[in-house]
Amino acid sequence: MRNEFETELKNLHIRFSEMAMMVNEAIQKSVTAFITHDQELAKKVIQNDQNINNREIDLEKRSFEMIALQQPVTSDLRMIVTILKASSDLERMGDHAVSIARATFRLQKNAILPEVEQLISKISHLVESMFNQAIEAYLQQDDQQAIEIALEDNDIDKLVRTVNQTCIQSMKTNPQAVENGTTYMLVANYLERTGDYVTNLCEWVVYLKQGKLSDLNSKNIG
Amino acid sequence: MRNEFETELKNLHIRFSEMAMMVNEAIQKSVTAFITHDQELAKKVIQNDQNINNREIDLEKRSFEMIALQQPVTSDLRMIVTILKASSDLERMGDHAVSIARATFRLQKNAILPEVEQLISKISHLVESMFNQAIEAYLQQDDQQAIEIALEDNDIDKLVRTVNQTCIQSMKTNPQAVENGTTYMLVANYLERTGDYVTNLCEWVVYLKQGKLSDLNSKNIG
Repeated sequence: MRNEFETELKNLHIRFSEMAMMVNEAIQKSVTAFITHDQELAKKVIQNDQNINNREIDLEKRSFEMIALQQPVTSDLRMIVTILKASSDLERMGDHAVSIARATFRLQKNAILPEVEQLISKISHLVESMFNQAIEAYLQQDDQQAIEIALEDNDIDKLVRTVNQTCIQSMKTNPQAVENGTTYMLVANYLERTGDYVTNLCEWVVYLKQGKLSDLNSKNIG
Repeated sequence: MRNEFETELKNLHIRFSEMAMMVNEAIQKSVTAFITHDQELAKKVIQNDQNINNREIDLEKRSFEMIALQQPVTSDLRMIVTILKASSDLERMGDHAVSIARATFRLQKNAILPEVEQLISKISHLVESMFNQAIEAYLQQDDQQAIEIALEDNDIDKLVRTVNQTCIQSMKTNPQAVENGTTYMLVANYLERTGDYVTNLCEWVVYLKQGKLSDLNSKNIG
């Protein structure tokens, strides 16, 4: 019975980290679609979101069965409930990918701001790297690593501010830039939140290891 | 034992709905601070967020104890886990109130757009009413009511689009309006998400009553 439970718990961890990787990929693809103005790719990201949602439902179902049938001890229960809550975060990050993909259709070709698109691309690479490291820290249950990874969110926030300032400057001097400027700022805002969610994931890693809630970034969302 | 559990479950529901009311109040106050340019009130909203966060931690602690010590049957377990997940949503709505309050400090007095501020005030009243109704439907476990309430989110979305269009128009004709215009759009965006979260709450009510996940608004966030 205990062995069976251990196996199922391990499976749950793996399926959760797979979901995290699916979401990371969705975000990267959405940004690629956005900055290369690739509407076909954007459509694929939007369609694929259902798979992410289904994975959350699958995790919920498995977690419920484990709690109801096997009545886990408190520490295991904490782990299962953490996965339940963290998978909600992942699902929301997937929704951000959809929002970024949708923004692709609003960009006006005659008022592209290439330097802003380069900045957004740079931010998405920081998010990707931070996210991959956080998934690894989760799998290794490495709380020290998680604390360090969370600091990377500051670089993301800094670049987002640069995007905002650059857009505002462009919009002030060129009325034609207004529509795209607001779209760029919105996309940067989604990436900023994505960084906050990755920080949350780092906090979950600390919570699982140390059993206490931490705040690795005072301005984070969760 | 069973009676004790029933009492605790009832307490959990009440404490959850209290948290919802705290969040609703925080959102209303943040919008009031924003559109009346009341930085003192904005500060209070920001400081008060800790109380909302503490309530989430309190609900989590109580839920854990109930699951671990009383090993509830599946239907009760579903209810407790739903409260756990929904309280994360509430906590995030509280963070949106903080973001709106913070925006108060960015508004430039010499480029106020009164018609936009009126629209934002109108949106916040719709959010308040929808939120209050959703809390009531939750307390009554009235799934039919919840389904109807969720439809109100469309009116919120419509007004948010009007805010966006009005801001873009102003920014195009007046470079001085650019900074405030982007701030107004961001605040409207937070209120739109708040409406999405209230829709989520309606979905939880349906879930608790009917035992199945529903999608009451295809563009919602959770």
